[in-house]
Amino acid sequence: MGAMTEPVLIAGKWRAAGSSAATFQAVAPATGETLAPTYPFSTSAEIETALAAGVEAAAELRRIPVDEVADFLDTFADAIEANRVELVDAAHRETALPQETRLDGIELPRTTGQLRQAAAAARDRSWSRATIDTAAGIRSKLGPLGGPVAVFGPNNFPFAFNSVSGGDFAAAIAAGNPVIAKAHPSHPTTTRLLAEAASTSLSAVGLPPATVQLVYGVAIEDGLSLAAHPDLAALAFTGRRSSGLALKAAADRAGTPVYLELGSINPVFVLPGALAERSDDIAMELFASCTLGAGQFCTNPGLVVLRGGEDADRFVAAAQRLFENGEPGVLLSPSDSISAAVDGLVAAGAEVVTGGFSDNNDTFGYANTLLTVSGADFLADPAALQAEAFGPVSLIVRAADLEQMDEIASHLEGNLTGTLYSDSEGADDAAYDDLEPALRARVGRLLNDKMPTGVAVSPAMNHGGPYPSTSHPGFTAVGIPASMNRFAALHCYDNVRHHRLPPELQDPNPTGAMWRLIDGSWSQADIA
Amino acid sequence: MGAMTEPVLIAGKWRAAGSSAATFQAVAPATGETLAPTYPFSTSAEIETALAAGVEAAAELRRIPVDEVADFLDTFADAIEANRVELVDAAHRETALPQETRLDGIELPRTTGQLRQAAAAARDRSWSRATIDTAAGIRSKLGPLGGPVAVFGPNNFPFAFNSVSGGDFAAAIAAGNPVIAKAHPSHPTTTRLLAEAASTSLSAVGLPPATVQLVYGVAIEDGLSLAAHPDLAALAFTGRRSSGLALKAAADRAGTPVYLELGSINPVFVLPGALAERSDDIAMELFASCTLGAGQFCTNPGLVVLRGGEDADRFVAAAQRLFENGEPGVLLSPSDSISAAVDGLVAAGAEVVTGGFSDNNDTFGYANTLLTVSGADFLADPAALQAEAFGPVSLIVRAADLEQMDEIASHLEGNLTGTLYSDSEGADDAAYDDLEPALRARVGRLLNDKMPTGVAVSPAMNHGGPYPSTSHPGFTAVGIPASMNRFAALHCYDNVRHHRLPPELQDPNPTGAMWRLIDGSWSQADIA
Repeated sequence: MGAMTEPVLIAGKWRAAGSSAATFQAVAPATGETLAPTYPFSTSAEIETALAAGVEAAAELRRIPVDEVADFLDTFADAIEANRVELVDAAHRETALPQETRLDGIELPRTTGQLRQAAAAARDRSWSRATIDTAAGIRSKLGPLGGPVAVFGPNNFPFAFNSVSGGDFAAAIAAGNPVIAKAHPSHPTTTRLLAEAASTSLSAVGLPPATVQLVYGVAIEDGLSLAAHPDLAALAFTGRRSSGLALKAAADRAGTPVYLELGSINPVFVLPGALAERSDDIAMELFASCTLGAGQFCTNPGLVVLRGGEDADRFVAAAQRLFENGEPGVLLSPSDSISAAVDGLVAAGAEVVTGGFSDNNDTFGYANTLLTVSGADFLADPAALQAEAFGPVSLIVRAADLEQMDEIASHLEGNLTGTLYSDSEGADDAAYDDLEPALRARVGRLLNDKMPTGVAVSPAMNHGGPYPSTSHPGFTAVGIPASMNRFAALHCYDNVRHHRLPPELQDPNPTGAMWRLIDGSWSQADIA
Repeated sequence: MGAMTEPVLIAGKWRAAGSSAATFQAVAPATGETLAPTYPFSTSAEIETALAAGVEAAAELRRIPVDEVADFLDTFADAIEANRVELVDAAHRETALPQETRLDGIELPRTTGQLRQAAAAARDRSWSRATIDTAAGIRSKLGPLGGPVAVFGPNNFPFAFNSVSGGDFAAAIAAGNPVIAKAHPSHPTTTRLLAEAASTSLSAVGLPPATVQLVYGVAIEDGLSLAAHPDLAALAFTGRRSSGLALKAAADRAGTPVYLELGSINPVFVLPGALAERSDDIAMELFASCTLGAGQFCTNPGLVVLRGGEDADRFVAAAQRLFENGEPGVLLSPSDSISAAVDGLVAAGAEVVTGGFSDNNDTFGYANTLLTVSGADFLADPAALQAEAFGPVSLIVRAADLEQMDEIASHLEGNLTGTLYSDSEGADDAAYDDLEPALRARVGRLLNDKMPTGVAVSPAMNHGGPYPSTSHPGFTAVGIPASMNRFAALHCYDNVRHHRLPPELQDPNPTGAMWRLIDGSWSQADIA
């Protein structure tokens, strides 16, 4: 079996796994077929080798001009585009996500766009927030962490959140850190193709080959050893809460910064005026958002809160028709966990409006599903009724009145997003003002009048939020350059001789355009 | 005993502790005398009350204009100055730190200066890094965490790092969060006086009274419950490593951001040219820095690395004379832990050059102490030889050669600071370039040619560093506004109607001078 197993990328070489390595194969969700390539679980010895190579690469990267790091990211983006047919084909096979427009038209361009934005940010250098106190002779900036960053990618974005091409990868590299990527086991071939492109691009630009390393599988205990290893500089994880929290506990014990994205139900509050004004439109927006990508988005609207009554009945009826008539998408993984989550919601008092079953007895399908619960029942067990069903599932809470809607908002866990729909004439403004503070405190991104799916790669984006949606409320995983801050240390220079300062902190502006905070004012000028 | 016990400040009221509460009294280090006031350990019920009041205060603070928060900080600074005689007297009694110039001339003005800088930062609002993407309709800024911040202050700065007046306090409040302060048990009366001034100032300005709460003592299990409580928004701790790590473990489990400052030995590398050029001067600087405040500074130079030989011998002899002739200061607490740390260094192979004993059998005294060890012996047990002795103690490592100095640098733990002394003619430049990268990666603040004590309150300061010196390498505890970032959440607004945005994100510049990142450029202008 070892001879047929795909090699891992460690210390710049594609290495055969040991012949005794455990292996796995991915499954095509569209057909249930086991895919041919066999991928290894890496041993703890391989992980130690990767960490040591990562530490060395981190030291080398610090001596290399940032423009070369940027060149790598651009070259890699070009290589992905040059290989787009094979990549889209592999990703489609492994995820069943549609080739058009999702994979080829949206996600791949988003991914190369992110890599190029990260390249531009590295070149621009403003991200590092150079802060200069000329009178005190103290100058500081953000810089790389000094060791490798481990990235564990999720199953739902085979390109844009992939551990060797996604947002965490781009941010960590652009901030000057090497990456040890752990492939998601549902799309190892897509990840291998991306890593091949990355590896070739590293060679082309002349960056240390261990700047990007890849393993496919790790046993739980080896993953925890990696997270707890003193040579690991940071860890980024997107995925299942139980796995993320186990990694966090290990990293926390070692004092290693860890950034989790653990899921979110993204509450949507529809205020009475909006419901009266355009309930059919909002039902359509809910349907489109909740079933997009078979509902497998971190920002899927899994909870809708409105005031019960005739308008609410009309809204639920409209949504029900749409959910029933919509063609369910193919899931990324078997529907067991969605079934379990829906069963949990029902056990806690929710009623199924439509769906609530695995689709056509296909393990990779689940019916578009709506549930409802009264506000009082929600408040009787808010924790259970906030369990995430990672699929085309939304729970509608019919509150008794506006006060109960506020009460529900104040019982929410931390979420990535929170949405408020209000009417166009201002009739909902007072209700908005009452409700907004509780929601604001519990979400990273607050929206008006649109569903939360669709996370723009904007410098102003926050794809983050209070625990447990993520592990730190001050950082975003999407949006450049802010996402780079997670993988940076604050480097201060006190009385350091001018020629020894990094270029970003010397008197001349290193690019002619870098923004620096000089004596309290942001400036692109040289220091006189 | 309960009747005589000082009340705690909870939910805006000075409340008597329960009559069954355990109590403690501080000791005057200068005399060993137990001081009269009796302070309570707070029960878990009191801590729950404080948390609930803190959550409410956090919600109220969000509705209050930031200028009022700034007014409070300024008013509080004035109140501290108005009460300076009593404060300096109490702090002197409880810490034995000199009234002049340390307490009255340096630390108190530094403290009120920090509070006023924090007030100015709150008013200025640029700290919140408003980031505006006009095309996408997405705007974000840092904002308060939405709950109370617990601050545990250390023993060594009764004003400037006090949990109700110090840097963490000022930063948390200026960022819009209420504080639950835990007094250091070595200076409860100083802390009470500060809290009285804070409380009066809150009333004068009209801020929620629970914006500042104070407890004096908590049992270990109650401290851990506080750290692990879901209503706690963040925790800041400065002090002993074992206590800090226990609190961190509790906060980590709850997903609560925690900022520790755990100590540091602040390595100083003296390169050969500098040693040849000015060894006597550097020995004098070491003596002055290492014995300042009886060596009880986080940035005390506890490790000096140089190349053995005649210059090193001359340096050690000069330092020895100074350490022997210097008058040892009074310690903040009994010398047991310093003795234990020095014993540990000796057990690991260090030799005592001078000192190494408790001073005059006084439990609050410890002789100025120098130790030496060879580079080879240091590298044989680098962990043991990096144990911190929190007092006037420094270990001099005599390396065999420059390569061994580099090797030592690469075996250092994370530290707050690292210093390089080099000669004035450039003879050390090559050695500097070889050594600097390893040191840079392991410290928060890198210095040239001066000792690390003296932490300027500069916007460019980093009083932070890699683990285990602190718990996150990206943040500083000193320096405004950067220290405020620790107590902030990223608040994003997506498609939110203009009149509902916070003033910092609306089109007009809210102050006329706030810096905002608008479409990629920092600007003080309105948005057209």
